[in-house]
Amino acid sequence: MSNEQLDQLRNKLDQVNLEILELINKRAELVQEIGQIKEKQGAYRFDPVRERAMLDLITEHNNGPFENSTLEALFKEIFKASLELQEDDHRKALLV
Amino acid sequence: MSNEQLDQLRNKLDQVNLEILELINKRAELVQEIGQIKEKQGAYRFDPVRERAMLDLITEHNNGPFENSTLEALFKEIFKASLELQEDDHRKALLV
Repeated sequence: MSNEQLDQLRNKLDQVNLEILELINKRAELVQEIGQIKEKQGAYRFDPVRERAMLDLITEHNNGPFENSTLEALFKEIFKASLELQEDDHRKALLV
Repeated sequence: MSNEQLDQLRNKLDQVNLEILELINKRAELVQEIGQIKEKQGAYRFDPVRERAMLDLITEHNNGPFENSTLEALFKEIFKASLELQEDDHRKALLV
């Protein structure tokens, strides 16, 4: 009985993992688009004020179980990875 | 024109952030439920074989732009945070 329940929960977990995967990649595409516009404007890609505003919006909407501090740390990793992706695009553009 | 476009993209990004937030918390709840079942079974909570299987499923479904290595690193952080949440639950249970 418990094992069946465990399998069901694990299937749900796999489903949620794939939904997170899709959203993280969708997010990366948006960040790439934003990077291209900022590139044309000659603006620097990393914007700490905007990053703070994003984190504030996230923690304002947090209903748990994760604590705000954990979510901030996780989202900062996601932001950093997205920024690195922008930087790769930038380097590739310079090499063309 | 570009600034309007930038604002639209940023609104979309905020929306995606909140969707990720919701899924990460939903995922944490599932992990807590799994932890409770494993607790009753006396099983150890961290399962490296299951973690590998989850990562493989994720990278099999990855259509980019993130590379598999980046996604593995991000998901490992999410897994770690979820496991820490389980451990907090376990400690609280012991204190009751």
